[in-house]
Amino acid sequence: MRQAGRYLPEYRAIRQKVDFLTLCKTPELAAEVTLQPVDILGVDAAILFADILLPLEAMGAELQFVKGDGPTFPSPVRTREDIARLREPNVDETLGYVFDAMRLVRRELDGRVPVLGFGGTPWTLAAYLVEGGGSKHFEHLLAWSYGDPEGLSVLLDRVADVSIAYLLGQIAAGAQALQLFDTWGGLLDLDRWRIVALPPLRKIVDALKGKVPLIYYINGGTHLLPALAELPVDVLSVDWRLPLSEVRRRLGDGAPKILQGNLDPAALLAPIPEIERRTAAVIEQGRGGGHIVNLGHGILPMVPVENAKAFVEAVKRTAI
Amino acid sequence: MRQAGRYLPEYRAIRQKVDFLTLCKTPELAAEVTLQPVDILGVDAAILFADILLPLEAMGAELQFVKGDGPTFPSPVRTREDIARLREPNVDETLGYVFDAMRLVRRELDGRVPVLGFGGTPWTLAAYLVEGGGSKHFEHLLAWSYGDPEGLSVLLDRVADVSIAYLLGQIAAGAQALQLFDTWGGLLDLDRWRIVALPPLRKIVDALKGKVPLIYYINGGTHLLPALAELPVDVLSVDWRLPLSEVRRRLGDGAPKILQGNLDPAALLAPIPEIERRTAAVIEQGRGGGHIVNLGHGILPMVPVENAKAFVEAVKRTAI
Repeated sequence: MRQAGRYLPEYRAIRQKVDFLTLCKTPELAAEVTLQPVDILGVDAAILFADILLPLEAMGAELQFVKGDGPTFPSPVRTREDIARLREPNVDETLGYVFDAMRLVRRELDGRVPVLGFGGTPWTLAAYLVEGGGSKHFEHLLAWSYGDPEGLSVLLDRVADVSIAYLLGQIAAGAQALQLFDTWGGLLDLDRWRIVALPPLRKIVDALKGKVPLIYYINGGTHLLPALAELPVDVLSVDWRLPLSEVRRRLGDGAPKILQGNLDPAALLAPIPEIERRTAAVIEQGRGGGHIVNLGHGILPMVPVENAKAFVEAVKRTAI
Repeated sequence: MRQAGRYLPEYRAIRQKVDFLTLCKTPELAAEVTLQPVDILGVDAAILFADILLPLEAMGAELQFVKGDGPTFPSPVRTREDIARLREPNVDETLGYVFDAMRLVRRELDGRVPVLGFGGTPWTLAAYLVEGGGSKHFEHLLAWSYGDPEGLSVLLDRVADVSIAYLLGQIAAGAQALQLFDTWGGLLDLDRWRIVALPPLRKIVDALKGKVPLIYYINGGTHLLPALAELPVDVLSVDWRLPLSEVRRRLGDGAPKILQGNLDPAALLAPIPEIERRTAAVIEQGRGGGHIVNLGHGILPMVPVENAKAFVEAVKRTAI
């Protein structure tokens, strides 16, 4: 999960000076906020500060971050004609600022901890691009998926191609592992996820496989575990809704063997002894295979910094 | 699910004349829009037009419906002091308009189809009341649930008491079945759902048990099925994420035996032959026990009326 954010005074101080997109596009600042959680929380890895939607902007889709509303695409992509207007970007020219930030982070860290890059899955990226931003029901996306699934698959495939170039660029710039975020995959039932969302995701996984460790994150997707058991990624990252022991049981002998997660992000709003107790429980439930201790979703803006620290310290004290 | 809504021109015509709360509080109009889907779609039951949040307004919480933003509580309830300021309403005085609408609907229908009443579960009602409206993460609600679970349980218990009086009032006015909506129960993992959300829900279920058939609806809650198998309601209504055959398998020999659902609401955005194919699949998956065919969540505003009709007709043609 992104580690920097509004819960950190040091992050808010920078955001008072620049807007969100400027922060993403200024390598020195993106590198600075990437390093903040490493220094402040003592986490075992850095996660590059960026936004999953940047490659869509590189494809020519106008992207805005309106205060309070989150990301907005004023001209959503909803037809094959809209797809035809998207560009096939040269990622070094259009997303070079991300690679520059990655190189700066690697240099600053100097081997202290590894750095993770990341991107969104094609389905999740398309969710925002088709809908025009975040949404409760993603009606336009789902209408397209039912009404003209072949048309939508053209979009998903093009997003997959750009994502591959973008993620390879992150690796070239120094990313030591990659996370793929599937925030909205859980909107689909298992059959539809396999048919609609999986092919473009597989294209990315197959293109990156073996280059660096791949982590796939799903939110609200416990019903998708039978398909995820077959996904050839190195790490499966899950939300807090099922204990890791149960996730492992449902995956059976399938890949992936390493789980990441899954403390409820809201648990960091609890008193510190409760955070410690719940962290110990997550570690206990994670036994039986590889486990990267993490939250089950992004860190919430209301979380006190000392609570986030208490989580990291509890992990370090408890884990072997 | 609520059957009337923005997808119906007849509903939009009324909403152009009155705002949402006025519609809820004017029995003649609420009865009129309740009957629209019965006449237009030919459904087998009517569902009273109301809003789950009305009992919270009756408790003294100011409730607004701001266009585009959905429900808003300008003064959210976040502390024990806030709870103490809530009223114990006389439901006949404060929510009599709902009972009046129910009586009008019964009279108009004259036995043609039965009428369902409904309410929200205490956890879901509290979600809006604590957060101050809809939310992506419900941080304030979850913070309270971790930081002072006893305090939150006082609120949930008071909401349960008002809900019981309100639902008994609906029965007295003629409701022939009741649905309880747990839209946000799926935010909680299984253990926390049992500890936090279940006790006030059980209080309602126990108070209403045996009076009319009780339907419990959960959204995004496939991970809660082990607990739902023990819930003594008559019907379990689920979203579209798992096929009903799999839901039934996971419930095992537990109650409830009758399932309701679960066509993906977005499937009504598909071409009609695809709607018919998917409706037949839902009916097929529902075999092996009682089944009330329904959508897996509320009907979406973009759905063409003829598609909603095609769904109802496909059910009537296919079901035994």
